[in-house]
Amino acid sequence: MFKREKMANTEAFAMVGGDVAYSYAKNSSYQRDVLDAGKELIEEAISENFDLKSLGFDTSSKVIKIADLGCSVGPNTFIAMQNIIEAVELKFFRAKNQNLLGLEFQAFFNDHYENDFNTLFKTLPPSRKYFAAGVPGSFHGRLFPKSSLHFAHISYALHWLSKLPKEVANRNSSAKSKSSVYNSSAAEAYSTQFKNDMECFLNARAEELVPGGLMFILAGVAPDCIPISNTSTGVFYEVLGSCLNDLVKMGVLGEEKVNSFNWPAYRATPKELEAIFRKSGKFSLEKMEILADKGMKTPPSPEGFALAIRAATDGLIRNHFGDEFAEQIFKHFTTKAEENFSRIMGLAHNNLNVFILLKRLE
Amino acid sequence: MFKREKMANTEAFAMVGGDVAYSYAKNSSYQRDVLDAGKELIEEAISENFDLKSLGFDTSSKVIKIADLGCSVGPNTFIAMQNIIEAVELKFFRAKNQNLLGLEFQAFFNDHYENDFNTLFKTLPPSRKYFAAGVPGSFHGRLFPKSSLHFAHISYALHWLSKLPKEVANRNSSAKSKSSVYNSSAAEAYSTQFKNDMECFLNARAEELVPGGLMFILAGVAPDCIPISNTSTGVFYEVLGSCLNDLVKMGVLGEEKVNSFNWPAYRATPKELEAIFRKSGKFSLEKMEILADKGMKTPPSPEGFALAIRAATDGLIRNHFGDEFAEQIFKHFTTKAEENFSRIMGLAHNNLNVFILLKRLE
Repeated sequence: MFKREKMANTEAFAMVGGDVAYSYAKNSSYQRDVLDAGKELIEEAISENFDLKSLGFDTSSKVIKIADLGCSVGPNTFIAMQNIIEAVELKFFRAKNQNLLGLEFQAFFNDHYENDFNTLFKTLPPSRKYFAAGVPGSFHGRLFPKSSLHFAHISYALHWLSKLPKEVANRNSSAKSKSSVYNSSAAEAYSTQFKNDMECFLNARAEELVPGGLMFILAGVAPDCIPISNTSTGVFYEVLGSCLNDLVKMGVLGEEKVNSFNWPAYRATPKELEAIFRKSGKFSLEKMEILADKGMKTPPSPEGFALAIRAATDGLIRNHFGDEFAEQIFKHFTTKAEENFSRIMGLAHNNLNVFILLKRLE
Repeated sequence: MFKREKMANTEAFAMVGGDVAYSYAKNSSYQRDVLDAGKELIEEAISENFDLKSLGFDTSSKVIKIADLGCSVGPNTFIAMQNIIEAVELKFFRAKNQNLLGLEFQAFFNDHYENDFNTLFKTLPPSRKYFAAGVPGSFHGRLFPKSSLHFAHISYALHWLSKLPKEVANRNSSAKSKSSVYNSSAAEAYSTQFKNDMECFLNARAEELVPGGLMFILAGVAPDCIPISNTSTGVFYEVLGSCLNDLVKMGVLGEEKVNSFNWPAYRATPKELEAIFRKSGKFSLEKMEILADKGMKTPPSPEGFALAIRAATDGLIRNHFGDEFAEQIFKHFTTKAEENFSRIMGLAHNNLNVFILLKRLE
């Protein structure tokens, strides 16, 4: 059970929070905890906001369609899907609504073309209550036909940018940030890119969701007024950057290759997000709530931290540096992460998680 | 342009016809030719049988949903999808139907959990006119919500059985058929299994297709009154069986392993198929037409034949014998196929292809 008040998050993996979207199935316990926290909020949202009649359901069409965007390979995406379905069932069970009879669910699992859908499909829960489908493609564009979804869910994926802003494409241009994989001197460029991406994201979802349809967003956000260098996310960027620079000095990696590696993500503040949602004009912002948990299910360790980071960064690192260098990079990173562990832990409270509920305007 | 009259099919790869459903993208030119033949028939079927109004389309729902069942990895499945969409567009273009404005298509690509959906997704045509989704699972069971499809297409996949009948699980029991991967003395058991599978298939599709929805079936069928041993499919079973027996004698494969390998497919006759469709009571059989082409686009060669066979059998062989033996099996099979090539070619006319149009009763 999670308390839903604004309090420090002491979870070990919080330092990478929003950046662990593409994690391995085995190293995503942090997201799992946040999903559990979101479950209660989803239940509440569906109970208060979802009504079959207003969505045009009749006897001929009794299919509820749900999408998880940026789903990765599971198991968290399956848990999210189950949470939503259970919330719908609960609502109709409570209301003793006979309309529930014959209701069917269709679940769409979306992620990039590079996602391992084969693994996702093979690990689908055998006892699932839905018809499953995989949908490849970027959620910054259209993925589904018009008015074809009742619910969209996106957990720890919204911070990924569709591309790096021009201004940060080469960190070499800024001596100050050369030691980090995040060019903090170009914060405005990241922010602008994020706003553009969010506009595309919201426009696409506005087309795809039925009027009255709901979108659940779980995301890591940046606290207002705290520079990124003073968050565990910032320290992570710095440790990874310094790890890569070490490998240049050791002659393992080329300087050009390292300088052109930048982290294509942006953590917005709750204020920024709110402004973006209000500006879109297609959704009502029903809720934005900081999540806080009572503590960790598993105590943090430097090794667990390094594994979580690897899970989060593996695809990016491999794509940029190639498989042959990935092992060396992660090995060295693990050492550096252990050295910086207490510093990272000490800043974990500066990372926040939010639950957001948007409703497609009628 | 294909002539649609009953005539001998002289296509080189016709000998394996219906068994090449799980072929590699590169070695499926035979199926491609048959798809081209089916295109005209699909156009005709949609022109005569498909009407937006009767399917309950209105201004709020303008999505046409199409499934390709047993899709493999492409490119044939993409061609089939395009053929169907073009036929729908053609119909509304001809009718100058303004209702077409804003019409969207959603394409569902289905195959077994073991299918390589990653490759399928990465090779989706960039200029496609539909929203794509992959749906894993056996088409002998439910895959989609009720009344959620307008068209289903299944090309060269219906002959696969959901399992081997008990009676043929071990070819050892029948000395006569020991040299073939198909136990022709148990024809009735195969036929019964096929009927059961088809009943499941039709029941599932009847739930999933909207009333008035159409199912297009392209399939290899057995001619009436010709024993399987006298068809090129039968000779293929025999050549593969004899190849495996050689490898037992050479000490490469174990006898048990080879005896327990059986081809889990059945080619029904048009008569059998007709009886199955009529019995189902949920579809009207609008058309069953033997396809015949005017000739081959590429001349047949023993090597091409062996490659097509490999494409068709690779998954089955690997699953049963393991990756380490697959290479040896295919190497030896290629030699044997070359030796038997003229015999196989000579019987190609005994393999038939049919186009079937079923309409979901209202």
